[in-house]
Amino acid sequence: MKNLNNEFVIQQQLNKKKIINDPVLGFINLQSEIIFDLIEHPVFQRLRRIKQLGLSYLVFPGANHSRFEHALGASHLMRQAISALRLKGHEITEAEAEAVTAAILLHDIGHAPFSHVLENTLVEISHEEISLLLMNRLNKHFGGKLDLAIQIFTNKYKKRFLHQLVSSQLDMDRLDYLNRDSFFTGVAEGTIGVERIIKMFNIWNDQLVVDEKGIYSIEKFLISRRLMYWQVYLHKTVVSAESLLINILKRAKELAIAGQQIYSTPALKIFLENKFSPVDFKRNTMVEGKTVLDWYSILDDNDISISIKEWQWHTDLVLSSLAKSLNNRKLFRTQLQTSPVTKITEGKILEIITREITGDSALSKYFLMTGEITNNAYNKHNGKILVLDKTGNIKDMQQASDMNLNALTKTIRKYFLCYPKELDIN
Amino acid sequence: MKNLNNEFVIQQQLNKKKIINDPVLGFINLQSEIIFDLIEHPVFQRLRRIKQLGLSYLVFPGANHSRFEHALGASHLMRQAISALRLKGHEITEAEAEAVTAAILLHDIGHAPFSHVLENTLVEISHEEISLLLMNRLNKHFGGKLDLAIQIFTNKYKKRFLHQLVSSQLDMDRLDYLNRDSFFTGVAEGTIGVERIIKMFNIWNDQLVVDEKGIYSIEKFLISRRLMYWQVYLHKTVVSAESLLINILKRAKELAIAGQQIYSTPALKIFLENKFSPVDFKRNTMVEGKTVLDWYSILDDNDISISIKEWQWHTDLVLSSLAKSLNNRKLFRTQLQTSPVTKITEGKILEIITREITGDSALSKYFLMTGEITNNAYNKHNGKILVLDKTGNIKDMQQASDMNLNALTKTIRKYFLCYPKELDIN
Amino acid sequence: MKNLNNEFVIQQQLNKKKIINDPVLGFINLQSEIIFDLIEHPVFQRLRRIKQLGLSYLVFPGANHSRFEHALGASHLMRQAISALRLKGHEITEAEAEAVTAAILLHDIGHAPFSHVLENTLVEISHEEISLLLMNRLNKHFGGKLDLAIQIFTNKYKKRFLHQLVSSQLDMDRLDYLNRDSFFTGVAEGTIGVERIIKMFNIWNDQLVVDEKGIYSIEKFLISRRLMYWQVYLHKTVVSAESLLINILKRAKELAIAGQQIYSTPALKIFLENKFSPVDFKRNTMVEGKTVLDWYSILDDNDISISIKEWQWHTDLVLSSLAKSLNNRKLFRTQLQTSPVTKITEGKILEIITREITGDSALSKYFLMTGEITNNAYNKHNGKILVLDKTGNIKDMQQASDMNLNALTKTIRKYFLCYPKELDIN
Amino acid sequence: MKNLNNEFVIQQQLNKKKIINDPVLGFINLQSEIIFDLIEHPVFQRLRRIKQLGLSYLVFPGANHSRFEHALGASHLMRQAISALRLKGHEITEAEAEAVTAAILLHDIGHAPFSHVLENTLVEISHEEISLLLMNRLNKHFGGKLDLAIQIFTNKYKKRFLHQLVSSQLDMDRLDYLNRDSFFTGVAEGTIGVERIIKMFNIWNDQLVVDEKGIYSIEKFLISRRLMYWQVYLHKTVVSAESLLINILKRAKELAIAGQQIYSTPALKIFLENKFSPVDFKRNTMVEGKTVLDWYSILDDNDISISIKEWQWHTDLVLSSLAKSLNNRKLFRTQLQTSPVTKITEGKILEIITREITGDSALSKYFLMTGEITNNAYNKHNGKILVLDKTGNIKDMQQASDMNLNALTKTIRKYFLCYPKELDIN
Repeated sequence: MKNLNNEFVIQQQLNKKKIINDPVLGFINLQSEIIFDLIEHPVFQRLRRIKQLGLSYLVFPGANHSRFEHALGASHLMRQAISALRLKGHEITEAEAEAVTAAILLHDIGHAPFSHVLENTLVEISHEEISLLLMNRLNKHFGGKLDLAIQIFTNKYKKRFLHQLVSSQLDMDRLDYLNRDSFFTGVAEGTIGVERIIKMFNIWNDQLVVDEKGIYSIEKFLISRRLMYWQVYLHKTVVSAESLLINILKRAKELAIAGQQIYSTPALKIFLENKFSPVDFKRNTMVEGKTVLDWYSILDDNDISISIKEWQWHTDLVLSSLAKSLNNRKLFRTQLQTSPVTKITEGKILEIITREITGDSALSKYFLMTGEITNNAYNKHNGKILVLDKTGNIKDMQQASDMNLNALTKTIRKYFLCYPKELDIN
Repeated sequence: MKNLNNEFVIQQQLNKKKIINDPVLGFINLQSEIIFDLIEHPVFQRLRRIKQLGLSYLVFPGANHSRFEHALGASHLMRQAISALRLKGHEITEAEAEAVTAAILLHDIGHAPFSHVLENTLVEISHEEISLLLMNRLNKHFGGKLDLAIQIFTNKYKKRFLHQLVSSQLDMDRLDYLNRDSFFTGVAEGTIGVERIIKMFNIWNDQLVVDEKGIYSIEKFLISRRLMYWQVYLHKTVVSAESLLINILKRAKELAIAGQQIYSTPALKIFLENKFSPVDFKRNTMVEGKTVLDWYSILDDNDISISIKEWQWHTDLVLSSLAKSLNNRKLFRTQLQTSPVTKITEGKILEIITREITGDSALSKYFLMTGEITNNAYNKHNGKILVLDKTGNIKDMQQASDMNLNALTKTIRKYFLCYPKELDIN
Repeated sequence: MKNLNNEFVIQQQLNKKKIINDPVLGFINLQSEIIFDLIEHPVFQRLRRIKQLGLSYLVFPGANHSRFEHALGASHLMRQAISALRLKGHEITEAEAEAVTAAILLHDIGHAPFSHVLENTLVEISHEEISLLLMNRLNKHFGGKLDLAIQIFTNKYKKRFLHQLVSSQLDMDRLDYLNRDSFFTGVAEGTIGVERIIKMFNIWNDQLVVDEKGIYSIEKFLISRRLMYWQVYLHKTVVSAESLLINILKRAKELAIAGQQIYSTPALKIFLENKFSPVDFKRNTMVEGKTVLDWYSILDDNDISISIKEWQWHTDLVLSSLAKSLNNRKLFRTQLQTSPVTKITEGKILEIITREITGDSALSKYFLMTGEITNNAYNKHNGKILVLDKTGNIKDMQQASDMNLNALTKTIRKYFLCYPKELDIN
Repeated sequence: MKNLNNEFVIQQQLNKKKIINDPVLGFINLQSEIIFDLIEHPVFQRLRRIKQLGLSYLVFPGANHSRFEHALGASHLMRQAISALRLKGHEITEAEAEAVTAAILLHDIGHAPFSHVLENTLVEISHEEISLLLMNRLNKHFGGKLDLAIQIFTNKYKKRFLHQLVSSQLDMDRLDYLNRDSFFTGVAEGTIGVERIIKMFNIWNDQLVVDEKGIYSIEKFLISRRLMYWQVYLHKTVVSAESLLINILKRAKELAIAGQQIYSTPALKIFLENKFSPVDFKRNTMVEGKTVLDWYSILDDNDISISIKEWQWHTDLVLSSLAKSLNNRKLFRTQLQTSPVTKITEGKILEIITREITGDSALSKYFLMTGEITNNAYNKHNGKILVLDKTGNIKDMQQASDMNLNALTKTIRKYFLCYPKELDIN
């Protein structure tokens, strides 16, 4: 029997200009063949199975949107940004336009399931590094058609503003996700004026800047970003769920490495039973018939969910107890405070946990999570937002605004503490 | 070690009045304790893992919304309908209000993964029957608090209009899902004037009717429903994906029953390897330590997705080939026609499939799907929509509207045919 | 002292590409000089002072939008339609694009205050005729730059589909006003999928047609149009207010022609004291120092409102009584019925009016209004909507739709009857 | 002949619970008789003829919304605020609820045409004082039913938080107008989360405060307010138009007082030819058969527009020239600067104006407007926004927010300069 799917790339030559319905942005037009082909590729299709906001759907039931949609949306905004800049007289060749669109489309392709949570738990490599590995692999597959896209993505291309459209304080990533996350969570206040911001784009000295008239829209963007951080991304119940997930995976990995029998889906199994270094990803170390990168690129949210569902009945009471909590949304109580949790407090709570729940002080740490969350809406070290006035002068957004943005540049740090709701710790 | 989760029901006595952000309806207020408790129950939480529109997300990338959100939304609309009817002077006691809200909240609780697709493939029992089984079980768990809700759900309660709010041509189910599906697919044209329709509700002779002023909103509702059917629910690519899913599961079950080694998640395994009758569900037949109903109530979309992902590498070429097609969205071509597909056409295509793909006529049927899809926006046999005029006279919507609704009551039937895109069948 | 304003046309040469904020359509880009210049002209600026929906704001408080906004919106949609057609390979030169945009921009320029109501009351010429007179005048002013626009407007240009974009069942006029009126009245159900309809446009045999995939959007458009007619345009309280306005102006004109002293603003005075035929408009008859067309083009809604406000204190009790009713929104009761109002009914009510209000049978007719309102959503005599299927065949929308559109093509006629609310006529 | 309109109040006893379509807020329910009766009164109906944003429609074509709609909207939000506060356990009697709703409904009833512009030009009394005079008059008309509303409005009622709902930094006035103006101008970025802010309302120590969870929504509200100020309310073209209007009326009043023949509508005539002090309003000075307050309460935007339209042909060249500019939107150029316009600059420009336009230095001042505009989003002297944390402690918003709001409390002052566009002043 012949394999069906190999034939496709060759045979589907026609009609790669497609229109896709996007609830946030309306109709998205795919305008070039390579963009269509990238979207069709299994590595990109995998993003359909990775939620954009991880476990946030446990607080915002509508937040089931995927990284697939976000990547499409960001590529759509990229096309608008290109038009806006061209209208102001800046040259962007069609090859550059295609490349920068491909770069934003693929910027998240290396994301682990449940977002950032799993980095440093399951794998010890950042998603940006994996994105680049996968882009290189796709580039090989498509015969070098992504050369320019990769140069832009890695900021090695001469026109530096193209990289800024992909990665900077005003990149298409942020412009898309703020509105998208606001749309699906129902936190309407997070909405920003994307269309207007893009119309205000300009280029000065090979840098992406904003026309002076756009100052208030940028202020609004920064404030919305800040609001979304506190109200959604760092929502204390979301923090609680994510901490729980980390502890579950830690315990599972521990058991697995200790050689205990532990259920898991095939792709997750590989990452539970092994510790891979970045080198294993880059050098294509083989495990059970596939490279590490291959295994990674078939791992998605469902692997985690299914495994946790099954762990509810595991004989290890720590694992089963935590798994039940997450699967059935019996989340831990979270306390936020402005100073770090002291050792004394931790010790006191661990004692209560031992007394009330585990009966074994060695296990109690799994029922207490502490950590810090930080938020700064405008990180000036990370490339400033520059404002161009009518006379051609350039200013940093902080100077240009008559509002004190220092506050927005300051990193706000909060410390959290999660423990089972039934504990009486006061 | 103590089990954490049993304690919860007792300890979380306080603050069961919650506000939930819903992107479609805004803030949803949970107004009673039993509603809160039902939502917290694992059987209801499972709905978070069942997509409202099954595989439609392969065509509409935003359509990742879950049955969980829909059930919450429908319960919110129910509260509005109750207010509207009370304002018109109809008595609805608080106990009735709570019961009818619980009934709509739970109406879909028995849904299989990927919606209707899996009924008759994996299980031979309708989701409505399972919903009732689960409601009875919850009723026992909550000490009879759902007695009235179940009476309303099964249309045994004296006030029959309450049942109609749960199940009829104008029930809260439809009012919620049309707008919700329209919202998440981005098919803005499907939007209906829910708020206005509900304000037009009235009761006549113990039946839910609509005030005459609402006629045009009802017409619009029927047309939107029709549009959503053709544009979304019966979209030919969605039909193609669903047919593929059915064939995949058929093949997998066949292999499993034939005793072949086949990967599957624990919950799916039970349903692949056994054939259960409705009686097995009702009598609580035990399999591998759980009742059939228990197994069912832990089965969700992820079980199917994960298993199909793994089947891409199965040694059975039919299974692996189909699994690759679905997992990576290499869907079959679909042709719609107004007459049934003839045996001759089928035979001809099967021959080509045998020649081009399978090399074995016994396997070719897995690569050809045929069937029919039907649509009628207003099914008059299924309880009419009644219109109340100012003088107190009642008419069927068909008479009341000066538009010819016959067309909408007629069942439109189309026949489909799906086969691999690379085949040249003409 | 020099006159300021003559200088402007010459001096404002630069920067005629403007962006205008439109709450319905977002940002509107003016893309050509002539469009900018037409908008700047006083004859077009006058449209700011003519409400799009006349007296409907008395029922829908948000409906204060003007014909100015509508004309801008329609011109914006025209640009989108041109792009969509060009994308499908149809040639439209830039000169044609500019001309057809100018034609839609100016299509309503001859509108009387308070829309259709005043035709046949104050003037005996249709607004379409006046639009053409004003377009010719503008053409002279702009040195023939509107030649092509006028050819298209009058359907004398060879490419007939361009005229259809300006005037047909699917013209930009309708596509804009349905959504705009829906937006400002708050009747959300009237919304149509403009963006999608335009994407479905095609050209066949020099006619504007719709691709088959767009059938459901067209059905939705026809139903929305019908809904807007009954719910907004022919709302019985709006009908009542418009009838009142007609009677007020009739009475005022009667008094004026009888030589009675009657207050009016300068522009209205001309039309109250004279009866002009279409010829007076075309031949530029002079009255009090200006041509009739000049006078007309400075007459706007405010002239009517101010005069009616003052008439509240006129000594003619008929006039003052009716003027008070309209100015303070004490509108008459309206009855709708399916058969014409009989002479007998009219007589009976007039008698009551004489007895209860006027005491003089000669005056009673001013307090009774009768008439008919009609609605057909799809007028097939007025140019059909044609649907193009994939094989290149063309069908009338009625055949193409599997829904019975006969109903929509049927003219629905209702008869109304308005009289003072305090009358007891039963 | 009997006068129709006196009868109405008596006869329309029934059905005063109406539903009104509002495009911004959806359906508005009128819930009490007195609210219905107030809306029906001619003094309130007059607000239909006063635009909420004055001349802003010359920049934002959609901004034709009236104070009538805004007052309805604010009364709707008041009802929501009352519900929210009652849900948190604060007692508000039905009489108080009705009174505070009436107070917000009437808060703008004394507004002059074209908003603040006309205060100090045509009349020398603030609109707040007139609102109170009119409320007292209505109170007499309705037999004292507004006693409590007036106490609340004037902050003499014991429950002071009720006054704060009518007038404070978080009053229903602001909550409605920000969203409404954002909606009609199309400046989507001005949108605030009204529903959420209201849900966060609480009462502490008889003051309206905000629950801590609402901090980010309040920040967003303050930033949106600031954005709307710069982008809409103080838009430089709007400033230019308003300055022009002031100069036109100054010149017209000058001519009128000098005894020159000058056209005007009856109501405007009174205010052009006389100078009234606040005492004239309060003591009911009679002019031409009506009290000053009577005349004021029939004056609306249309009186100004019609008069200016006619002044285009006045023999005074200053008046006619300015009138043409405004009527046909040939607005003056505006320059904004951070320091006041110096006498030297003024002198220089006046010289050019004399040379290029007027030929008479006494007239040149009419063609140059200077002034200042100021903006502070959060005026802490004007009653702080207080935040209530979970432990019951209260903080000023400035302390509660970890953002530096000092910037928002600082008054930003800009200076403007408007002169005819054709002047070359550099």
